[in-house]
Amino acid sequence: MKNQTLRIIPLGGWGEVGKNMTVFEYNNQILIVDAGLMFPDNDMIGIDYIIPDFEYVRQNADKVKGIIITHGHEDHIGAISHVLEAVNAPIYATPLTLGLIENKLNRQNFTEPIRLQKVLAGESVQIGAFKVEFFHVCHSIPDAVGLGIQTPAGLVVHTGDYKFDHTPVDNWPTDYAKLAEFAQRGVLALLSDSTNAERQGWTASERMIDSAFDQVFQDAKGRIIIATFASLISRITQVYDTAVKYDRKVSFVGLSMNENVKIAKELGYVDFDDRVVVPLDNALKMPDNEVVLIVTGSQGEPLSILGRLANGMNKRFDIKPGDTVVLSSHPIPGNEELVYRAINRLMDRGAEVVYEALAPVHVSGHASQEEMKLLLHILRPRYLIPAHGEIRMLKAQARLAESIGMEPEQIAIVENGRVISFNHGEMTIGERIPGGYVFVDGSGVGNTDQSTIRQREQLGNDGVIVLSLVLDAKDNAFRELKIQSRGFMTEEDSEPLFSELRSRVERLALSPSNNLERDLHNTARNLIYDDTRRQPVIFASVFHG
Amino acid sequence: MKNQTLRIIPLGGWGEVGKNMTVFEYNNQILIVDAGLMFPDNDMIGIDYIIPDFEYVRQNADKVKGIIITHGHEDHIGAISHVLEAVNAPIYATPLTLGLIENKLNRQNFTEPIRLQKVLAGESVQIGAFKVEFFHVCHSIPDAVGLGIQTPAGLVVHTGDYKFDHTPVDNWPTDYAKLAEFAQRGVLALLSDSTNAERQGWTASERMIDSAFDQVFQDAKGRIIIATFASLISRITQVYDTAVKYDRKVSFVGLSMNENVKIAKELGYVDFDDRVVVPLDNALKMPDNEVVLIVTGSQGEPLSILGRLANGMNKRFDIKPGDTVVLSSHPIPGNEELVYRAINRLMDRGAEVVYEALAPVHVSGHASQEEMKLLLHILRPRYLIPAHGEIRMLKAQARLAESIGMEPEQIAIVENGRVISFNHGEMTIGERIPGGYVFVDGSGVGNTDQSTIRQREQLGNDGVIVLSLVLDAKDNAFRELKIQSRGFMTEEDSEPLFSELRSRVERLALSPSNNLERDLHNTARNLIYDDTRRQPVIFASVFHG
Repeated sequence: MKNQTLRIIPLGGWGEVGKNMTVFEYNNQILIVDAGLMFPDNDMIGIDYIIPDFEYVRQNADKVKGIIITHGHEDHIGAISHVLEAVNAPIYATPLTLGLIENKLNRQNFTEPIRLQKVLAGESVQIGAFKVEFFHVCHSIPDAVGLGIQTPAGLVVHTGDYKFDHTPVDNWPTDYAKLAEFAQRGVLALLSDSTNAERQGWTASERMIDSAFDQVFQDAKGRIIIATFASLISRITQVYDTAVKYDRKVSFVGLSMNENVKIAKELGYVDFDDRVVVPLDNALKMPDNEVVLIVTGSQGEPLSILGRLANGMNKRFDIKPGDTVVLSSHPIPGNEELVYRAINRLMDRGAEVVYEALAPVHVSGHASQEEMKLLLHILRPRYLIPAHGEIRMLKAQARLAESIGMEPEQIAIVENGRVISFNHGEMTIGERIPGGYVFVDGSGVGNTDQSTIRQREQLGNDGVIVLSLVLDAKDNAFRELKIQSRGFMTEEDSEPLFSELRSRVERLALSPSNNLERDLHNTARNLIYDDTRRQPVIFASVFHG
Repeated sequence: MKNQTLRIIPLGGWGEVGKNMTVFEYNNQILIVDAGLMFPDNDMIGIDYIIPDFEYVRQNADKVKGIIITHGHEDHIGAISHVLEAVNAPIYATPLTLGLIENKLNRQNFTEPIRLQKVLAGESVQIGAFKVEFFHVCHSIPDAVGLGIQTPAGLVVHTGDYKFDHTPVDNWPTDYAKLAEFAQRGVLALLSDSTNAERQGWTASERMIDSAFDQVFQDAKGRIIIATFASLISRITQVYDTAVKYDRKVSFVGLSMNENVKIAKELGYVDFDDRVVVPLDNALKMPDNEVVLIVTGSQGEPLSILGRLANGMNKRFDIKPGDTVVLSSHPIPGNEELVYRAINRLMDRGAEVVYEALAPVHVSGHASQEEMKLLLHILRPRYLIPAHGEIRMLKAQARLAESIGMEPEQIAIVENGRVISFNHGEMTIGERIPGGYVFVDGSGVGNTDQSTIRQREQLGNDGVIVLSLVLDAKDNAFRELKIQSRGFMTEEDSEPLFSELRSRVERLALSPSNNLERDLHNTARNLIYDDTRRQPVIFASVFHG
């Protein structure tokens, strides 16, 4: 007999719910939507990135009928290689998204055979028990889609990341007609992007940026260097268009910037003239007021092009007085210090720097409160599952929904791994399956845990000291104390302390002890703390030589 | 013959100019204004705090006639004990500021004799060659002052931290009349707070918060827990007043909160009724809807009261459903992650959380652009030295000044340590003296340098492995390889790797080598990197036993 329950399980995303992966399950068939990664917080020391805990998917790998990726940002595609190692299922996505996925898997030297299924916004695909209708949404990358997922248990709409820009750069607004059609059929549940649920009003259109860019190009006397996300193809197009208007040549700097532009060009998302786009070497030889460089590093990352320019560590060119640098981006929470430091250092080097606080050179890719209300009014879903956000954002979207008439019982605010079931049109919030996050560190997935991170924190705080005491094999007399340290204090400053430690240990070795390693450790710890108020990690060993 | 040049030198402040200390020098006499500290950025691992490099003051200690503290915040008083160790000079400040300084020095067990000179806003004091007129300014702590510093070379106005609140909680607006009087005498130079120079408009009045608090008290069904800075006496007063209005008792939680309230009460800055203020133990026994707890930790610091409440680690009470928590604060850049994490966790525990994004429960203590323009129009200084800000903020204030008619030549944007000289009414920007910053780590001042911090970073990234190879003293045969690690990976996960390492080292010990420690190090490094892509710090030693 058929199990007629539809189950929806948001998975993964450190701190955010349903951001990186969502699982739909009906009649023993599973559909995965998105497979992304998160970047670690500042205090998750040494962690490269974080992926969803998809143990549930791994254990039910044979039930997975397909993986849909809504758009090509890292928080939606970044964990694909990990998922593909566990699951052999086709990937459905629009052309640009597929291009970015392929590029990513190539860069990772992923060699397993994969099945990529191209779909276009407006098309429908039957994937197991799920009839999925892809509809276009505006976002800060082209070719983003939302999903209408029809099952015998009802129609679920998943927005993906979206906003309602009436004048997007590619002139392709979000598909209101499709949304209205869903509403006519009756929407059982809506999973909806909560990122900007705390932000009043309506997110500004990408078009607003044109006038800010105009002003920059009018004012700039020398080179213009614009930093933005490599995936923000529409922003790159706006820079290109302004460059054409002001008769400047454009050069792309940085691997991911060049790769993304190449993919977008091959797939026809941009139409850049080869007489306008020039290689960096040529651009650097041209008069300063005839070039625009588009670079990565708008988050101030020290190893990015912009970060290296700020620190004077870039290889092929440096910042010079007369340059105008534009940060066409918003600092991701946790990156504020890096971004502001980069701005200050660029100014120190004589550049004019234009950033969000000074001119409207960036807008968000996510819907604000009025757009969320509009979406709810168009779709009139029976249930709302605020998704893609920290709990404070989910709650903010819930409050909005209540302000326009939804009842609290119609809204499910859940944590990752919580199973939301729909049966005969009724929603039940059920058990919780593993749905947290997994740290990825080097090539290791999950073998760094919180206690390892706490140890790293201690190492990072005060450094490490390694003590090796060598005693004479025959008479146990003190022969040598080898002291090594790293990250403790400057060598010069530590010398008096270490020489005091040596003489104390020499005395210590004279007295009988039933645990000399412990005594060595304690002697060192106490002396160091009394003298410096620091608590480095201490390794103490005794050898008989 | 007299040296008739007035020299002004902004000192210290990591990333910010003239924030923590400014030196005025005339005719071989020095006046110090402020002696504050900065908190480290997220990537300054293990650093407790940062103080100005005041080597110049130390070398000229005998010339220092006085130290003026403009108000009681850490970034203005936090380095006083360090300065007093180098300089024997009286400290001039208003009563609340002096109270906070005394309390701070007591907590630090500072035992040297100190000279504290009480001054009131409106008074003038002759300090060496400097006639200093103290005038009241509004800021986010009571009793803040700006300074008119009269020297034979001219009158310099130093705003300290200020805003132009027309309805401050203590009904004491910034002293416009004094500013106008300075203008009549002619202002040679203005040093002016740049913190909010990127912010348009006029900073909202503290009074705006009353209506937000009103709403919170009307809506709250259970306990109200309000987190704010312990120094924000006016905010604490607003909570108290609202509590009285809604018939709730008030309890202060946390050492610094209680200490600051005690000092403010003793000095008459607050007038709290003992029938309203109750000890925490009593408050916890009262009905939930009759109490307000005022706590520290509004920056989400994990060890603060609010941080511990969020993490479920507080000792005397826990968050429970029905609690309303208000964060009456703004995240300091770099603290966003901590603050949002605390908000999410408080919500997870069932609390309603009210914060800046949802209601106007906080306003800044610094002037915005329109206030800066007003100040310039009132004072009409000949020269402007934008101070108290990162270079991006200084530049923003410079642009404002130019927008209302000042010439670029009238504005000095300098780094810390740059000497600005005034002679016969003309400004010259001169040489640079040491004026950077000094890291304080435990009890050590300056013995942690950037290379130590880089070592800590490496330790923090991948941990440490200590290898001690013991060979037989007679025949050099392999006897033992001791492997210790910390912060590398979980013990279980590292076991196969370490056992492979043991067998490789056993083989290594068989072959002749002219540097066995180096070979041991390389063998371990290569195996670990190939297997894990990690690069822990490795200590390798060889002993003969």
